[in-house]
Amino acid sequence: MYNSKAYAAASAASPLASTTVSRRDPAGHDVQIEILFCGICHSDLHQVRNEWSSLIPTVYPCVPGHEIVGRVTRVGSSVTGFKPGDLAAVGCLVDSDRTCPECQAGLEQFCPNLTLTYNFPDKHLGGVTYGGYSDSIVVDERFVLHVPSNLDLAGAAPLLCAGITTYSPMRHWGVTKGKKVGVVGLGGLGHMGVKFAHALGAHVVVFTTSPNKMDDALRLGADEVIVSRNAGEMQKHSGSFDFILDAVSAGHDINAYIQLLRRDGNLTLVGAPEIPLPVASFGLLFARRSLSGSLIGGIAETQEMLDFCSAHDITADVEVIPIQKVNEAFDRMLKADVKYRFSIDMASLKSE
Amino acid sequence: MYNSKAYAAASAASPLASTTVSRRDPAGHDVQIEILFCGICHSDLHQVRNEWSSLIPTVYPCVPGHEIVGRVTRVGSSVTGFKPGDLAAVGCLVDSDRTCPECQAGLEQFCPNLTLTYNFPDKHLGGVTYGGYSDSIVVDERFVLHVPSNLDLAGAAPLLCAGITTYSPMRHWGVTKGKKVGVVGLGGLGHMGVKFAHALGAHVVVFTTSPNKMDDALRLGADEVIVSRNAGEMQKHSGSFDFILDAVSAGHDINAYIQLLRRDGNLTLVGAPEIPLPVASFGLLFARRSLSGSLIGGIAETQEMLDFCSAHDITADVEVIPIQKVNEAFDRMLKADVKYRFSIDMASLKSE
Repeated sequence: MYNSKAYAAASAASPLASTTVSRRDPAGHDVQIEILFCGICHSDLHQVRNEWSSLIPTVYPCVPGHEIVGRVTRVGSSVTGFKPGDLAAVGCLVDSDRTCPECQAGLEQFCPNLTLTYNFPDKHLGGVTYGGYSDSIVVDERFVLHVPSNLDLAGAAPLLCAGITTYSPMRHWGVTKGKKVGVVGLGGLGHMGVKFAHALGAHVVVFTTSPNKMDDALRLGADEVIVSRNAGEMQKHSGSFDFILDAVSAGHDINAYIQLLRRDGNLTLVGAPEIPLPVASFGLLFARRSLSGSLIGGIAETQEMLDFCSAHDITADVEVIPIQKVNEAFDRMLKADVKYRFSIDMASLKSE
Repeated sequence: MYNSKAYAAASAASPLASTTVSRRDPAGHDVQIEILFCGICHSDLHQVRNEWSSLIPTVYPCVPGHEIVGRVTRVGSSVTGFKPGDLAAVGCLVDSDRTCPECQAGLEQFCPNLTLTYNFPDKHLGGVTYGGYSDSIVVDERFVLHVPSNLDLAGAAPLLCAGITTYSPMRHWGVTKGKKVGVVGLGGLGHMGVKFAHALGAHVVVFTTSPNKMDDALRLGADEVIVSRNAGEMQKHSGSFDFILDAVSAGHDINAYIQLLRRDGNLTLVGAPEIPLPVASFGLLFARRSLSGSLIGGIAETQEMLDFCSAHDITADVEVIPIQKVNEAFDRMLKADVKYRFSIDMASLKSE
């Protein structure tokens, strides 16, 4: 075991503050990574504040962070895929049972025995896992990704959650050249959705409640921007979309988007509104439309996504902050005051 | 033109009563059919009482009926697929534009220019189309089905709506041998769903609120019956279903069923609850589940379904009534007092 510097919350009401946590020494298939950047995901805030207590109660101290990019410092004796000095990344998962049908299908995110990167029982040290708001992490190589060298590392960090969360459903539902794709909600997830849909060759339409996001949406790759409050504008697109990615985490009128789908079109939720969304059955019946959800992606697909980003020169638009500003960043995230993701420069942790 | 005996409602508040309506003489591709049986569908009642006025206002007099089985009496000079004496059937559609992408895909039910069998603008005679509560109908041969000779005609009539409505989504979502399939709601639609899922080789589980339907569900082909109020019983099946057919037309807790789906499982609505159903996003996200709707089926698939019924000896369980009892049947249908579909013996119309 060794000590790793970290930022942790001591309780649901505490701000994040400097601390140290224990990490295991890398053995066997383990890879030790010096963390260079860690993105801030909305779920970090939910878990730090124990807002998902019914789903996954938070154990304190809680070190969040699952958008991790860094450099390999040591490897266990059985490691074959990484060597010290390699760029490496870790997302939301650090382990799974590797034997269940989900793991066999490369969908470790649905493994009933997965281990999340933070706030999840740690099979090695007891207690819970500690995430990426830290200077170091040790992860089995089977859950470590290779980071293509042409990617900006600060902007690459959010790919590990926001990136794969939006990439995976687009691949699953067949977003390709010639398809008409909508993205609802231009935030951390949505702005990645726009980039991916554009790079996949689709005609991309961004829906936003804020007319002032129009220029930015076009810059990110949108072909059209619709202000969703404009019912006439919405009506014009009725029955025309192959796929809509809905990245809104607040309650909203999902039926207005369902009716924009063409026959057999799909709307996938990647935000997670806490209140149930009323769904009108007729909207689904009349064109055999479907509504679904998607959750990050498997390990192989996450690597595929990173390689796709390399080929298409895609990273997240980030505001880089020192870790000392993480509490302020949480507050600003709640006000959607970030374009479009915070990425913590972990060099700032050295001074703690 | 000629006169056809029929039962029609004169207003939303009127009972159905004997009348005559005009039909066109069969010309070109037209097939004239002597109607022998017509099933009673819940949508007949909705439309007769103008309960779908926002969707499709009812024009009076209204002759409902779109589960039509009969015998060909005359054919137009261009008809190639039917001859007098042939058994024939007509479902919910009597025409479409035949050129749009939906028609090209064999999905005439989604054609933007379709013609429904009743209460829809009649391109030939003006006014609206008149349905199957009548002794005769004239329909373009491209919308007439062949009825396999081994099927009981009274029980075959409901196949044209209840049958195809449940068969089509099972085929679309890949119900086959080895799949675990749920059917929610054991009524006119649901009982057909059980028969089809069983014949397709699936392990069939019926969900019901009425323990007294258990024996009947098993007789129809269910392998298991779950009383849906029993939370413990429901929990045991969590994450295990490939497909669930939801044939409930009242509001109900759909999330309880969504959580029973395995990864990539689908729940298809074929009932049409009038109030929106609250859908919890987490249930969809956690296993990439989907919720969709389905609406009857195309003409080719309807013929495929009838041929499947012939091969597997499937018809609806019907209570045959004379047309004079149709108003009473409507009232009993509202109380779910029928096992499982009324089929009107149209010979009874001769005495009117």
